[in-house]
Amino acid sequence: MKENNNIRMQLQCPMPKLDFDVITLGHGSGGVLTNKLLDSGVFDLLSNDILNKRHDGAFLELNGKTAFSTDSFLVSPIFFPGGNIGELAVNGTVNDLAMCGATPKYLSLSFIIEEGLPVKEFWDILVAIKYACEKAGVQIVTGDTKVVEKGKGDKIFVNTSGLGPIHPKANISAKNIAVGDKIIISGNIASHGMAIMSVREGLEFDSEIQSDTTNLNHTVIKLIDEFGGDIHLLTDPTRGGVATVLKEIAQSSEIGIDLFQKDLPIDDQVASACELLGLDPLYVANEGLFIAFVSEASADAVLERLRQDEKGKNARIIGSVVGDHPKQVIMESGIGGKRVISMLPGEQLPRIC
Amino acid sequence: MKENNNIRMQLQCPMPKLDFDVITLGHGSGGVLTNKLLDSGVFDLLSNDILNKRHDGAFLELNGKTAFSTDSFLVSPIFFPGGNIGELAVNGTVNDLAMCGATPKYLSLSFIIEEGLPVKEFWDILVAIKYACEKAGVQIVTGDTKVVEKGKGDKIFVNTSGLGPIHPKANISAKNIAVGDKIIISGNIASHGMAIMSVREGLEFDSEIQSDTTNLNHTVIKLIDEFGGDIHLLTDPTRGGVATVLKEIAQSSEIGIDLFQKDLPIDDQVASACELLGLDPLYVANEGLFIAFVSEASADAVLERLRQDEKGKNARIIGSVVGDHPKQVIMESGIGGKRVISMLPGEQLPRIC
Repeated sequence: MKENNNIRMQLQCPMPKLDFDVITLGHGSGGVLTNKLLDSGVFDLLSNDILNKRHDGAFLELNGKTAFSTDSFLVSPIFFPGGNIGELAVNGTVNDLAMCGATPKYLSLSFIIEEGLPVKEFWDILVAIKYACEKAGVQIVTGDTKVVEKGKGDKIFVNTSGLGPIHPKANISAKNIAVGDKIIISGNIASHGMAIMSVREGLEFDSEIQSDTTNLNHTVIKLIDEFGGDIHLLTDPTRGGVATVLKEIAQSSEIGIDLFQKDLPIDDQVASACELLGLDPLYVANEGLFIAFVSEASADAVLERLRQDEKGKNARIIGSVVGDHPKQVIMESGIGGKRVISMLPGEQLPRIC
Repeated sequence: MKENNNIRMQLQCPMPKLDFDVITLGHGSGGVLTNKLLDSGVFDLLSNDILNKRHDGAFLELNGKTAFSTDSFLVSPIFFPGGNIGELAVNGTVNDLAMCGATPKYLSLSFIIEEGLPVKEFWDILVAIKYACEKAGVQIVTGDTKVVEKGKGDKIFVNTSGLGPIHPKANISAKNIAVGDKIIISGNIASHGMAIMSVREGLEFDSEIQSDTTNLNHTVIKLIDEFGGDIHLLTDPTRGGVATVLKEIAQSSEIGIDLFQKDLPIDDQVASACELLGLDPLYVANEGLFIAFVSEASADAVLERLRQDEKGKNARIIGSVVGDHPKQVIMESGIGGKRVISMLPGEQLPRIC
């Protein structure tokens, strides 16, 4: 489905005719070639009143509590089943803002391109950025394009930083976590990491494992709008996966977390791929998933509402906050055994996002 | 003087004792090693109430007109006479915000580190970032650290994005430029680019050519506070130099610009280095310089005030906006000849910022 989307997007935004096929150092000079590249379609594609001013920075009107986040993306390969580095970069920052209880509104976009990148690939990434922005309801308002010599980068790195007003009912803070809180996950784990790994390792399954990269902002804002302060903390388990993110929270907030292995939602094929490669899905990166710490009283209602949303249809309660074993995450296996969960010790899957 | 500053800074912020000497892929995993790196001193060094929350994004209070800007820095070498990539990254975004008439306030900081970077170099860059932030009066409020394999990056790339409230008296827009406007440059041109080139080419002079990297925000805000709407446009001539930036403005605003070569301020040594390497200083990058388009009536007063500021002591009026030859920049040489100025055609000095 996502693949078809990509093809449709490309048809609607055909690449302009250019007199160069690859990006060269000159396209990062700030001079004629940079202008040629940007004028050739980049500004048209991402056009909006703020960006079109083309000043050193964007002029915005912001009022009140605002979230601000940044991420650099250097996923390899830059095209993978279910997406590419462009939409990943938009969704990543959009979701970081959503995790603050904010409605993402404005993004900056900065490219570090390795000399020799085919313009066609750059264009496909830009088109994916455009559509990801539309889906999330954000605008690219300022940007930067730099080029490094061949062998001093890897095709393309993308930084996005973002801004958005915090929802008036949001009160997201690790300080709000209380004993009894339920931990809800919005969907199946480990899809993004295993989509990347399957390509790298040349694994073939009955059907392709697709990255879960998507924007979560509309889903999250709906929950905040209905449940407000009952949602204590939101976080997206990207690098390091569910295990690392929960351990970090347990440690910094000095709370105990109990986790139930049998409740962790995972696609069968993703589970098989993990087994085949000897990877623990708890540590595999996700890009379209969030974890919510919710007050005990509201947890079932939040879960029910979340499951009505396409992006939360596989949501589950996977654990709870407990008074004993502060700073520890303990996972109970299906057969009753218990295991202490630590953070990802080293690097499991480099260049995953 | 700058060198001494660096030594003093390092003495005041000694590197913490660590059990690793170089950055490895694991430091970008988002797991134990990333936390170890960040906890080892990064958070302490850059500490402030907002950053210390360590959430997916920063929670800010912003009200009214705000400027937002982004830049990725990939200068090579990362340490150069007069600075390093750390302060360059802070000053670059600080100055882009100042060029919008804004008081820079909050920055994001994102690293793409090549595996193998000595921790000592990373620390020196962080210390430079800390001091550059203090000088500019900005806070790092959110960040990201990623690591790429050896040979897939080049030591370290730094992205900063920034935010700041626009001064109530500022009215910066290319639309305000009018025939008769004077064009003021705040100091000597071509120093940053020639500092980098001197190192790369192994040139030796009586005294070292130093980069002009510095924060311009306090200087600019003082001018806006006094002269308000008489300052029509501000821009910093970084990549592509003075020529490219003026040509871009002439073209997009459909104005004519007359430039007087004899009035272009340049240090003798920088001029010699340019001659030696066959480079036109008009196209060489600057990092601590701005150009202001000022109403004719206020130009002399603005210049006088600017020259009282340490960062504007070499300021000059270098040209004016004219009614004829729209979209063209014409430079009159010392002996009366005229030359049409175009944008930097290709790449003169790659990886300058």
